[in-house]
Amino acid sequence: MTQPLRLGIAGLGTVGRGVIRIVQDHAALIEKRTGRAIEIAAVSARTRDKDRGVSIEAYEWEDDPVALARREDVDIFVELMGGSEGSAKAAVEAAIAHGKDVVTANKAMLALHGQSLAEAAETAGCVIRFEAAVAGGIPVVKALTEGLAGNAVTRVMGVMNGTCNYILTRMEGAGLTYDAVFAEAEALGYLEADPALDVGGIDAAHKLALLTSIAYGTRVDFDAVALEGIERISIADIEQAADMGYRIKLLGVAQRTGRGLEVRMSPCLVPASSPLGQLEGPTNMVVLEGDSVGQIVMRGAGAGEGPTASAVMGDVLDIARGTRVSTFGQPAASLAEPQAATVTTPAAFYLRMELQDKPGALAKTAMALGEAGVSINRMRQYDHVDTTAPVLIVTHKAARADIDDALRRMAQTDVVIGDPVAIRIEEI
Amino acid sequence: MTQPLRLGIAGLGTVGRGVIRIVQDHAALIEKRTGRAIEIAAVSARTRDKDRGVSIEAYEWEDDPVALARREDVDIFVELMGGSEGSAKAAVEAAIAHGKDVVTANKAMLALHGQSLAEAAETAGCVIRFEAAVAGGIPVVKALTEGLAGNAVTRVMGVMNGTCNYILTRMEGAGLTYDAVFAEAEALGYLEADPALDVGGIDAAHKLALLTSIAYGTRVDFDAVALEGIERISIADIEQAADMGYRIKLLGVAQRTGRGLEVRMSPCLVPASSPLGQLEGPTNMVVLEGDSVGQIVMRGAGAGEGPTASAVMGDVLDIARGTRVSTFGQPAASLAEPQAATVTTPAAFYLRMELQDKPGALAKTAMALGEAGVSINRMRQYDHVDTTAPVLIVTHKAARADIDDALRRMAQTDVVIGDPVAIRIEEI
Repeated sequence: MTQPLRLGIAGLGTVGRGVIRIVQDHAALIEKRTGRAIEIAAVSARTRDKDRGVSIEAYEWEDDPVALARREDVDIFVELMGGSEGSAKAAVEAAIAHGKDVVTANKAMLALHGQSLAEAAETAGCVIRFEAAVAGGIPVVKALTEGLAGNAVTRVMGVMNGTCNYILTRMEGAGLTYDAVFAEAEALGYLEADPALDVGGIDAAHKLALLTSIAYGTRVDFDAVALEGIERISIADIEQAADMGYRIKLLGVAQRTGRGLEVRMSPCLVPASSPLGQLEGPTNMVVLEGDSVGQIVMRGAGAGEGPTASAVMGDVLDIARGTRVSTFGQPAASLAEPQAATVTTPAAFYLRMELQDKPGALAKTAMALGEAGVSINRMRQYDHVDTTAPVLIVTHKAARADIDDALRRMAQTDVVIGDPVAIRIEEI
Repeated sequence: MTQPLRLGIAGLGTVGRGVIRIVQDHAALIEKRTGRAIEIAAVSARTRDKDRGVSIEAYEWEDDPVALARREDVDIFVELMGGSEGSAKAAVEAAIAHGKDVVTANKAMLALHGQSLAEAAETAGCVIRFEAAVAGGIPVVKALTEGLAGNAVTRVMGVMNGTCNYILTRMEGAGLTYDAVFAEAEALGYLEADPALDVGGIDAAHKLALLTSIAYGTRVDFDAVALEGIERISIADIEQAADMGYRIKLLGVAQRTGRGLEVRMSPCLVPASSPLGQLEGPTNMVVLEGDSVGQIVMRGAGAGEGPTASAVMGDVLDIARGTRVSTFGQPAASLAEPQAATVTTPAAFYLRMELQDKPGALAKTAMALGEAGVSINRMRQYDHVDTTAPVLIVTHKAARADIDDALRRMAQTDVVIGDPVAIRIEEI
């Protein structure tokens, strides 16, 4: 008879509670599916006595996650503490050093230390699985690493931070400013302790860096992500983009170009009628494109107890079934140096600016664009508010450098007030 | 050094060609991802000499797929011939008897003989994988069997026959009749040799039967699928459903009820703005719902050389990596007898009928519904054409039996002309 597979769970927040619930509620189902019982041997968290809605009485307790990771009676170390450094990393390293497999939801740790952890795990004959680190319950790490493994990946895209998507769709739905919705989200507990992780795009960029590594067989390179948050998105942009048939999303894109990998996480306009455009609230969506499979779109809850715990347990059940896949889909030592390329792939851009109510104002603006080599696809001037008029322009495809050149030329005219906004329009 | 993994490919049509292309074009990529070279040892098809766009000169040839399945130099038997009986089944049985793993795209064979084949494979220590049999390139078998393995599945839904979805969306887009678009699809080669496989819903039902087995841990039971094709869908239904905010899809649904499993493949109305409602052309979409993960939606190409070959190769690479998962997600002997339940879960229904231009006609119709216990949510009567008027009704939730009772009562009035149409409205 096969021995039970024993988990040591470090971190008993929302996700930890969800994992305990599944292990407790679905013991029979899990054993039927894997041929092996899954048990929780021991747990660790900051506070032992706390009503978590699940009983942890039957499990051994460790104050120190590193001690938990070393326990003889733990087969899989389930790391749900979070944080790229400190205890989480130390405990994962200890687990690997003691020959334990690791299942983690920790995108920050892997985005910054994935290469060294993957190498250590492979040397020790362990696996690190991290489905829960990317896009919550959507089994996208598995789809990319395994299901699409016969493809050369051509593009990976995704809306992978639910809080940002909540903020952007709530601004549009309620006609509220960024600051108002940010305050709402904070009050609802939707934001990380450091909000820049969410609204600055860092959390989503961690996830994108992980998918990029798997997709292109390169070492994880968080620093290569060209990063821009949603802090500067105004309700005017949202409403006027909608008027032109677009929605604004914090969108990650990783694509191979002749010059290397372009990886960016930034606000983009997408067609309002597209699957990405229609994504509401905290839902996530990932788009995977491969040379054989074409385009696969996956949508689901990007966070929350159940969805994230589902992803953790998917990894645990894989290990129980004997599945052993390299952390990033191929041996860590064989991952290539990422050739990060600056973002120069041309795109259409949405431009918004305020023009002074003067004869020739529009002509000067159009001329600045023309001199920078940027041509106009669509333009709308709205009615004047006091002495200024909002102008929207959708350009034909242009390099970002040429757009920036046009913006500089506009600033030198005496008709553009303040800083014009330029947002990339993504083809999907 | 690990030995190459050697494929024997039976069937060199569209999908076979796609598999050969991937093996030839991505040899280095595949070896990096699996740590093992993948080679084609031998192939089999009806005709050897035929321009397939790929060279098969380097491979051994067998006229007989059973002989191919038995070859010493074949590790994985890749069955791409199709057909539920005959050569395909004989060859798969021979492969298993000779200890070969099997990768197949054959939904019909597995829907009818999956249980006995899975038992034989497990006895022989072999695996049967069939990602390509369901929803083309979408890695949905993997998502359900592995990624969501920690969930009790609550509902599986899908649009899984691209030809039907092409016909329905083309009818709407061009305002053409079913017969006109059917003829177009036939001329374009979109239909199976026996069109009932497509438009009768049989092909989609095969796929649904396979997903149902995995989702609920039951033996594959194709006969339990309540099956209705799209042959009777008229352009009037499509246009009038659109007028009420719906689209018509050939939709498969498998859900657990207190009385057992309800499994049905039938035309349904779905909200036009929902992801399923927006699915155009031959694209497929599968919706998976689990008690932890919530709802996962997956969209992609449901057929074609590249997508289907991508799915085949995903399975091949899994085997190369050493992944061994039971055919239907748990040992075949442990699969439960499916408790098939008749479809009695109440739903709103769309009804369309022609009424005679007589005083009291609408009242008699409404009375027939009331007598059957069916209440009306929305009703529209359109202008008369000659002496008849089309009437649309959206009911509140009702059991199908009550709807049928209402239709019988209507037939007994002297005001309803011909057979009224009743189509289920699916909540998604």
